[in-house]
Amino acid sequence: MKFSTIVIGDELLIGQVTDTNSGWIARHMAPLGWEPLSVRVIADDAAQIKLAIDQAFASTDLVLMTGGIGPTKDDITKQTLLSYFGGEMVLHEQSRRNVDEMFARRGIAMNELTAQQAMVPSSCQVILNEVGTAPIMWFERGNKVLVSMPGVPHETRTMMERAVIPRIVKRFHSDVDVEYRTMVVIDYAESALAEKLAPLEQQLPSYIHLAYLPEQGIIRLRLTGTHASHEVLNADMDRISQQLHKILGNCIIADADKPLAQIVGERLRKHQLTLSTAESCTGGNIAHKITEIAGSSDYFMGSVVSYSNDVKHRVLGVDQTVLDTCGAVSQPVVEQMVAGACNVCHTNCAVATSGVAGPGGGTPDKPVGTVWMAARVGDVTVSRCHHFNGSRAQIIDRATTHALIMLLHLL
Amino acid sequence: MKFSTIVIGDELLIGQVTDTNSGWIARHMAPLGWEPLSVRVIADDAAQIKLAIDQAFASTDLVLMTGGIGPTKDDITKQTLLSYFGGEMVLHEQSRRNVDEMFARRGIAMNELTAQQAMVPSSCQVILNEVGTAPIMWFERGNKVLVSMPGVPHETRTMMERAVIPRIVKRFHSDVDVEYRTMVVIDYAESALAEKLAPLEQQLPSYIHLAYLPEQGIIRLRLTGTHASHEVLNADMDRISQQLHKILGNCIIADADKPLAQIVGERLRKHQLTLSTAESCTGGNIAHKITEIAGSSDYFMGSVVSYSNDVKHRVLGVDQTVLDTCGAVSQPVVEQMVAGACNVCHTNCAVATSGVAGPGGGTPDKPVGTVWMAARVGDVTVSRCHHFNGSRAQIIDRATTHALIMLLHLL
Repeated sequence: MKFSTIVIGDELLIGQVTDTNSGWIARHMAPLGWEPLSVRVIADDAAQIKLAIDQAFASTDLVLMTGGIGPTKDDITKQTLLSYFGGEMVLHEQSRRNVDEMFARRGIAMNELTAQQAMVPSSCQVILNEVGTAPIMWFERGNKVLVSMPGVPHETRTMMERAVIPRIVKRFHSDVDVEYRTMVVIDYAESALAEKLAPLEQQLPSYIHLAYLPEQGIIRLRLTGTHASHEVLNADMDRISQQLHKILGNCIIADADKPLAQIVGERLRKHQLTLSTAESCTGGNIAHKITEIAGSSDYFMGSVVSYSNDVKHRVLGVDQTVLDTCGAVSQPVVEQMVAGACNVCHTNCAVATSGVAGPGGGTPDKPVGTVWMAARVGDVTVSRCHHFNGSRAQIIDRATTHALIMLLHLL
Repeated sequence: MKFSTIVIGDELLIGQVTDTNSGWIARHMAPLGWEPLSVRVIADDAAQIKLAIDQAFASTDLVLMTGGIGPTKDDITKQTLLSYFGGEMVLHEQSRRNVDEMFARRGIAMNELTAQQAMVPSSCQVILNEVGTAPIMWFERGNKVLVSMPGVPHETRTMMERAVIPRIVKRFHSDVDVEYRTMVVIDYAESALAEKLAPLEQQLPSYIHLAYLPEQGIIRLRLTGTHASHEVLNADMDRISQQLHKILGNCIIADADKPLAQIVGERLRKHQLTLSTAESCTGGNIAHKITEIAGSSDYFMGSVVSYSNDVKHRVLGVDQTVLDTCGAVSQPVVEQMVAGACNVCHTNCAVATSGVAGPGGGTPDKPVGTVWMAARVGDVTVSRCHHFNGSRAQIIDRATTHALIMLLHLL
């Protein structure tokens, strides 16, 4: 089945903000068998909104609309929907209470603009916005459906998963439940993982779909299921999750969608370990990724970014002779770097990197993209050499991801 | 004047890749008086492409189209344009030579798919793609113009600036030249800058437009000029640039669009200075930004990410008594941290940060967002306290930018 997406917002049209909602929607509708026919980005303008709805309804039965309904927006979208679908503006009591409570929790007084948010056309069915103030409006005309949602990505995404997608499923697929499971997988290329899981995929019930979302060294596996019985679906999803764990073992590093640095942090916390990093070519990016996670100061003590050989030698204690004979990008150097990081920062775990991020500095022996890395947990140290492709930024990113994966294997 | 944008590509529609070309186009057409009426993202599908062109031509005279014409694409877009605008497929000799030369330079053999790239509908005028293999096609029908460009962002952007925008100006604004100047400005809020420049803006010739592109502590000022005489325009642009320099003085930190870390790096290189960082709340992000710049190993020696007080004291030499009495987020601590960084990494410049990135860890005295930072060049140390709003990620980003700006003031 095909649907259309309409994205409303001057700020998006003039290029001040980039629309990422339409892509998210497409990725999350796909497992249910829905394909986008087109995405239109238009201004907060009544004539343009009306035209876009006309054109979208002309070719699809379902139109998903984001934006144009925030508290700081002119109320153009809502007025246009009122005149398009008919009725009058009415107060939606539950949304009003929701707005009141939200403001009370934040301890702010509510202004008139925000109070207006609970007013909706009587022609729509309201879906309560549990994470924001603008109600979600569900309109029907004959066999056509239009859903108007806020543009704030976090609100759109949360409410799509919690309420809009289940309702679409109910409306278009009869009365069924929809469930998701996400797992984070390492140590597989997408094609190898697909091959490994082919037998399982062939046995999947028709109402459960498995999607591969690869992203630089990591693949997110996402199960989407739709079924009339919540109990049957849940039991199936549990069973398939267990099968995936049996097939992939330790390669599944998390049963929810979370950043790699958070998964590493949770393991460290669980085993009451502390971490430091010694970074050359990654230039502090590993420390940055780790400290992006709230609460990381519980297990992360610090880092020595040893960009110069002088800092490698003096601060981390890497042998000058080894630096001179093997070069900075070498196995003994990264192994001494992890030991040095543990020493200097008083930690029992560390990761280290030394490589050629480019575009300059490559040699026939050690071309751009060559990165030595080491990880240490307690007395165990492992090291290996990677050869990454791509730009300087991509090589830094890839080295960062693989250093964290290397550490994870020891935890 | 209004134009429409059509973005072609299955990968964009299904949300695998996010379209950033349409925003770039909007931002760069605006100074010339062009506003986008709508952006449509559609699949590589003949019927959809034809429909999108019909709908775009129905309301605008200019349609800018990106994507759907790469070597790995099916030739759907080109065939659809041929059937829409008429003519027959012909070889464009110059594009063929361009493709040949590009492949010869890269030392790769050309395959049949790529050779096909030089075939274009006879109904179009070709604009040579100087940075890629897919020719840019300019179609006219009555007073309507459609320009088909490749979807690779770097190709679209380079060729829009070099050839497509000048040609649009010529076609719609008569025979004129178009010129740009960009400056990077610090220490101004957008509104304060607009107020300061209001007298200059009032005196700007009608053919020169000044745009403000703010981005976290930095504002990019962009002059766009269009005039029949290249000489007159160049002289005007030079004069206005000089006036801007006279009004804004040292607040203009660069006369071209480049990242802050690159501007800092160029100053360090020019004065033959070396840099290190001592980071607490920024967690290595300053070092990461600096080392993203190619060649930064010439002036950047390293960093100590001192997330624990223990590392601040032992590695950077911050007084334990000062840590105990003033707390880690304090002026004396960041001042001792920059001194420590210079000592440990053997550099003559350093920056340091210590703050509360949140969401936890705030106190009534030092709420989330409180960040002390210091910069040191030679014997001169400056320090100050900032209070940033936003999420943990935003606070880390803002502290990073302001620490680099603080250093720049001393260079």
